[in-house]
Amino acid sequence: MNTDRQAVTVIGLGSMGSALAAALLDRGHPTTVWNRSASRARPLVDRGARLAATPGEAVAASPLTLACVLDHPALHVVLDPFAAALAGRTLVNLTTGAPEQAHEAAAWAGSHGLDYLDGAIMTTPPGVGNPETMFLYSGSSAVFEAHRPTLAALGDPLYLGADPGLASLYDAALLGLMWSTMTGWLHGTALVGAEGTPATAFTPVALRWLTAVAGFLTTYAPQVDAGRYPGDDATVDVQIAAIDHLVHAAAARGVDNALPELLRSAMERASAAGHGSDSYASVIEVLKKPADAR
Amino acid sequence: MNTDRQAVTVIGLGSMGSALAAALLDRGHPTTVWNRSASRARPLVDRGARLAATPGEAVAASPLTLACVLDHPALHVVLDPFAAALAGRTLVNLTTGAPEQAHEAAAWAGSHGLDYLDGAIMTTPPGVGNPETMFLYSGSSAVFEAHRPTLAALGDPLYLGADPGLASLYDAALLGLMWSTMTGWLHGTALVGAEGTPATAFTPVALRWLTAVAGFLTTYAPQVDAGRYPGDDATVDVQIAAIDHLVHAAAARGVDNALPELLRSAMERASAAGHGSDSYASVIEVLKKPADAR
Ligand SMILES: NC(=O)c1ccc[n+]([C@@H]2O[C@H](COP(=O)([O-])OP(=O)(O)OC[C@H]3O[C@@H](n4cnc5c(N)ncnc54)[C@H](OP(=O)(O)O)[C@@H]3O)[C@@H](O)[C@H]2O)c1
Ligand SMILES: NC(=O)c1ccc[n+]([C@@H]2O[C@H](COP(=O)([O-])OP(=O)(O)OC[C@H]3O[C@@H](n4cnc5c(N)ncnc54)[C@H](OP(=O)(O)O)[C@@H]3O)[C@@H](O)[C@H]2O)c1
Repeated sequence: MNTDRQAVTVIGLGSMGSALAAALLDRGHPTTVWNRSASRARPLVDRGARLAATPGEAVAASPLTLACVLDHPALHVVLDPFAAALAGRTLVNLTTGAPEQAHEAAAWAGSHGLDYLDGAIMTTPPGVGNPETMFLYSGSSAVFEAHRPTLAALGDPLYLGADPGLASLYDAALLGLMWSTMTGWLHGTALVGAEGTPATAFTPVALRWLTAVAGFLTTYAPQVDAGRYPGDDATVDVQIAAIDHLVHAAAARGVDNALPELLRSAMERASAAGHGSDSYASVIEVLKKPADAR
Repeated sequence: MNTDRQAVTVIGLGSMGSALAAALLDRGHPTTVWNRSASRARPLVDRGARLAATPGEAVAASPLTLACVLDHPALHVVLDPFAAALAGRTLVNLTTGAPEQAHEAAAWAGSHGLDYLDGAIMTTPPGVGNPETMFLYSGSSAVFEAHRPTLAALGDPLYLGADPGLASLYDAALLGLMWSTMTGWLHGTALVGAEGTPATAFTPVALRWLTAVAGFLTTYAPQVDAGRYPGDDATVDVQIAAIDHLVHAAAARGVDNALPELLRSAMERASAAGHGSDSYASVIEVLKKPADAR
């Protein structure tokens, strides 16, 4: 074991926490682990991790602790009984939560003399340890800079700002993009699948198309910031004409239409608000106002 | 003008038809054009296009005609009066439509001795002429092969199969993916924008994340074909816990929640159907069955 590397504790050994601990062990960090169900520590202990008897003992074992449990309430169940003994340590919380929960956790940590950084992991467990994988962090920049070399063992650490809620806010926004994209892909896969095209045949075409769609987002981002949406490439009204074909094609093949109908209704609201000749980016104007508050 | 290049006619000179004609002129194809409003032909005529007086004269002028008007009814308004004079020519229809409309158009063309290929353009007008841009085609493979060199002037021609409806079916599926992705991105942009992050700051992070999401689709495609969805990376139940944070964060910032709520309901239906410990790909099982037919 390379003792130049910072000692790290990992609390929570579900799919994700286990991947975090494994990446640290792979890179030679002395690693202490703790999990509510001790049995999940076994494969990590076999690879050289030290198993702590309590969360308090775990945090005490290393200057830096990564926490990755199901949610914030679980984090409090685990750490609250030991709060008085955590002063002087650093907690990087990689548990998914709301921005408001990150604010609460940062305040809780501060009140116990614990340095705190909030984080979000932008991959599934197999992507942990890949230097391309984004890990988002927010909170104290001094804490981030002090631990950046260790955090780089997990992926590419991106610092978003001093507000500890930012990592969770970005995480929610990016996961929303992921679920939208995955559900749109599954819907398209179901549609072509109804005529016998396998998912493995459709998906390479879908992935090529996604790179074109990425180009549209790059075009539209400055339009959003300017609040002006020139429709010189493709207008909302042309998209409304086209989405009718999707709705009919899906209905004719018995595929659920809730998603296309919601998308059409967003476009129709944008058109009704005067954006018919604008680009699709103008749909953000209706998303900024909840439907019931129009 | 390079007279080795096949003569081509373009009918319909909206944003897209004008881009098609311009790409052909750029590559030295003798190009004849026609549009309902003749004034839109002007910039193309200035670049060397020939303006035909009627759609019949336009089709007669070249072995190959590309049609790109608003929709199939418009195509019939334009071509029906001249149907008897079209025999022996080839019509490649790039007008967006439903698969059923492609079948009708192919039958209509066949009954008038006109060779027919259906197509779909997977770009906005600025992408026409880029060899990376996908153009999808379906129908007679002999017609496709005969005109492939000319079609390659517009982008990368992909042949999907003999069923003329396939290009429209893929088009609908891919546009659905685009609208889902763009709307998910706009929603995330509105969410981080509520705390002052500009779209141009969020979007590069979103684009990096989309390449990770593309990797998930590659992982999930064979799961869909196998009808088995091992949840060893991230389960539907873990995603349900995470989407609650998105819904709350959006509600707290006055951002419309219709899209996240629809996505959550699809996940909850998948979980209720026994897929809680499966991967997100299992959500396709509920999309294959309309909500009211469960
Ligand atoms: N999986 C992913 O792809 C992914 C991606 C990004 C972020 N995340 C986030 O990472 C976190 C963990 O996810 P995961 O995939 O590792 O989930 P998981 O496999 O279900 O593991 C959940 C972990 O939380 C612990 N836990 C749950 N309730 C607890 C409680 N009341 N007290 C103490 N410990 C408790 C579990 O302990 P036991 O073993 O004792 O049950 C286990 O260690 C979540 O916030 C998730 O959103 C996951
Ligand atoms: N723009 C894109 O990004 C894009 C991408 C892929 C596919 N498409 C498809 O390409 C097609 C054309 O789109 P566009 O963006 O070029 O739309 P556009 O700029 O609105 O042009 C519409 C064209 O259709 C013609 N037209 C409409 N109704 C007609 C009628 N009743 N009789 C004769 N001509 C009629 C118009 O003629 P006038 O000039 O006389 O009005 C014009 O040439 C659509 O099917 C669209 O879905 C567009």
